[in-house]
Amino acid sequence: MASKSFNPVTLIRKKRDGQSLAREEIAFLIEEYTKDALPDYQMSAFLMAAFLNQLDEREASALTEAMLHSGKVLDLSDIPGKKVDKHSTGGVGDKLSLILAPIVASYDVSVPMISGRGLGHTGGTLDKLESIPGFKVDVDLERYRQILSRAKMVMAGQTEDVAPADKRLYALRDVTATVESIPLIASSIMSKKLAEGIDALVLDVKFGSGAFMKTRKDAQKLAETLVAIGEDFGKQTVAYLTNMNQPLGYKIGNWLEVEESMEALQGQGPEDVMEVTHTLAGTMIWLGGRAESVEDGIKKSKQAVKNGQAFDKWLELTEEQGGDTSVLKDFSKYSKAEYSFEFTISVEGYITEMDAYSIGMASLELGAGRKTKEDEVDPAAGIELKAKIGSSVKKNETLAVGFTNNKKAIDEAKKILANAFTVEDTNVNKQPMVTHRVDKHGIHEI
Amino acid sequence: MASKSFNPVTLIRKKRDGQSLAREEIAFLIEEYTKDALPDYQMSAFLMAAFLNQLDEREASALTEAMLHSGKVLDLSDIPGKKVDKHSTGGVGDKLSLILAPIVASYDVSVPMISGRGLGHTGGTLDKLESIPGFKVDVDLERYRQILSRAKMVMAGQTEDVAPADKRLYALRDVTATVESIPLIASSIMSKKLAEGIDALVLDVKFGSGAFMKTRKDAQKLAETLVAIGEDFGKQTVAYLTNMNQPLGYKIGNWLEVEESMEALQGQGPEDVMEVTHTLAGTMIWLGGRAESVEDGIKKSKQAVKNGQAFDKWLELTEEQGGDTSVLKDFSKYSKAEYSFEFTISVEGYITEMDAYSIGMASLELGAGRKTKEDEVDPAAGIELKAKIGSSVKKNETLAVGFTNNKKAIDEAKKILANAFTVEDTNVNKQPMVTHRVDKHGIHEI
Repeated sequence: MASKSFNPVTLIRKKRDGQSLAREEIAFLIEEYTKDALPDYQMSAFLMAAFLNQLDEREASALTEAMLHSGKVLDLSDIPGKKVDKHSTGGVGDKLSLILAPIVASYDVSVPMISGRGLGHTGGTLDKLESIPGFKVDVDLERYRQILSRAKMVMAGQTEDVAPADKRLYALRDVTATVESIPLIASSIMSKKLAEGIDALVLDVKFGSGAFMKTRKDAQKLAETLVAIGEDFGKQTVAYLTNMNQPLGYKIGNWLEVEESMEALQGQGPEDVMEVTHTLAGTMIWLGGRAESVEDGIKKSKQAVKNGQAFDKWLELTEEQGGDTSVLKDFSKYSKAEYSFEFTISVEGYITEMDAYSIGMASLELGAGRKTKEDEVDPAAGIELKAKIGSSVKKNETLAVGFTNNKKAIDEAKKILANAFTVEDTNVNKQPMVTHRVDKHGIHEI
Repeated sequence: MASKSFNPVTLIRKKRDGQSLAREEIAFLIEEYTKDALPDYQMSAFLMAAFLNQLDEREASALTEAMLHSGKVLDLSDIPGKKVDKHSTGGVGDKLSLILAPIVASYDVSVPMISGRGLGHTGGTLDKLESIPGFKVDVDLERYRQILSRAKMVMAGQTEDVAPADKRLYALRDVTATVESIPLIASSIMSKKLAEGIDALVLDVKFGSGAFMKTRKDAQKLAETLVAIGEDFGKQTVAYLTNMNQPLGYKIGNWLEVEESMEALQGQGPEDVMEVTHTLAGTMIWLGGRAESVEDGIKKSKQAVKNGQAFDKWLELTEEQGGDTSVLKDFSKYSKAEYSFEFTISVEGYITEMDAYSIGMASLELGAGRKTKEDEVDPAAGIELKAKIGSSVKKNETLAVGFTNNKKAIDEAKKILANAFTVEDTNVNKQPMVTHRVDKHGIHEI
């Protein structure tokens, strides 16, 4: 890393005036910031200048590198075979990690997955895992390696020493209105993923009402930046643009999503969930060198569900991480939420639109998510949809069932749900779930 | 003032996205910042957003108001007559305050002048005043009013309690590359000037190599913003765009500029100095209600020099503020700098260009200015020019004489001066000093 010294004001001015910063200049800013030699107020001025004047792909790559090297970078080279991970930009009902990781690992491609907790309208993988009684996501590095070697997969939380500069920078962006910048988002994602010691990465970049990227155009830009950074670090990186105009699957909420994932691993997954899962898992199997093509990988992914090897892999992992597998095989053993309610509407027709964001917020209201970092989640809370876009619904038919341990939240959740469904006389055409693939060769329609 | 509460992140985002902030939103930011409830890192993100997306005139006016009300606002209404001040954006050799204030005050128009110290290549009025033995610029409010009542003018330093928000904001802008923003500069100037309790204001907005505004276009934009803010506060405000392509007059340095000012007050001022002085002073006399028009004011300004009333007024003020008037009448009584040197060049022809910035920096090097706020100035240090643009010079003729008490600085000063003069075979046309007037009716060529 560069240890050349610069005048921070000169660097801020350069970005302010629309110039590009050199790799060593960005390294200087991040190094100084990490060791508290650069104050927050200079970093936030730089971030706003970077937000408004953009960082180019070279700068985003330099920022990724600087944040990556601000902490520990895992070296998994002593674990045989390719290490392939997947990252999703997050969406409502997105439980894909729990389904695709065991599919991929069941082909002996290692999946060293480090995940986060949910905040706001989207859930976090860690919260879902922890809804399984006994499942431990806080494992030390030695145990992490051990699980990965034995099960070919591991699902853990980020430790303090992975990309600490990213953590500080993200917190600062959050309070200075500099979050929604594609190069800053991409650098943040990639610095954490590259710190995992992976060989290749598949990205699920979602767009639509329930996603952080509201438009396909923004999702494409983010995907292109992520792929450019990944390839710049010599890691094969493939991104898919996927539709998040409605929640993924039918179940939203931590334990509810575990349930739906287990159903999916046993061949009972909803169509939309399986379409995205097989595309991502198939690509990971291919990147891991266990399929001749993505198409072959997708075929293998479907086989792993059909023949039960993926579900077996999940049970193996759950045992490795201390989880209770009996509830996974028999949901009735799980302690349900105390209250449930049915959400109905008084019109009939076809559901033509669903506001995934609102459904995510209603689920959060019931206890499935966090409004602030300090909130605790209710593992059993959430929403089970009974209809999706394209479904025909009758008057007073139940569209969703809500679950919660907080009775007082029900009215507010219903109020939010009341605006989440659009019902019309004429049905709409089904939208494809995976619309585009972005890799080093460019963007391809699917 | 507004005490409505807002989410700071929402306000930063609004400016980031190019929207205008309401008066009460800007008031909220400044109030919170002043009472340490809004951290530096949020203010600097806001400042960078304001720098890049601009503040409109309404926002600049709101910012001025908020900073003005962050501290004490003088009420001079019990002092009879109009109170008129002048502000200059600063230039090399700009000693005009010392000449025009006594001219204006000699017509019983009150001039309550609060000035600053110099930093960088331009000098500060306070440093010039303090080069007069005994002259006190730190006077308390009671004494300030007393001097103003008796002498019709007072020249003092800014106290801590005038626009404290501006002081903090300026310090933050300095370290976050957000200084050179016209609306931010204008708000900073006007918040301090309006806090003086004035009725009208004349602004000298300089452009050229020695000025902060390098181009006439930027100077015009700044002048227009300053006038718009002043008029928004119900104060008659007139700005002039003046040329700073070479130093004003021949003498640069604190005591040297006092000398030239005294010469000017006694009818021996350089042509360029007098042209700007009479324009500004004439306008102030008119704004103060002691002339029928600006032209009449200019006539009166010239008279005040000719008949000695302006010089007498200066001597009166100097005595009020504790200064030694004997040195003003006889420069030989002043203790000169220990070292002096002549600067010559080895070509001949006409001086067609002069780099006022470099001459200012050479003077600073000799001790006349400050590189950092903590530096002390040498009152006797500086440069006396022997030629200006349009002068014909012979080989090895002296272009300037330098004065200093720091022998070691001479070589560096000479090095800087070596690039400050352009000598060519063909002479250039003389440029007018005052090019435009900006007032509430618009911009007018002069």
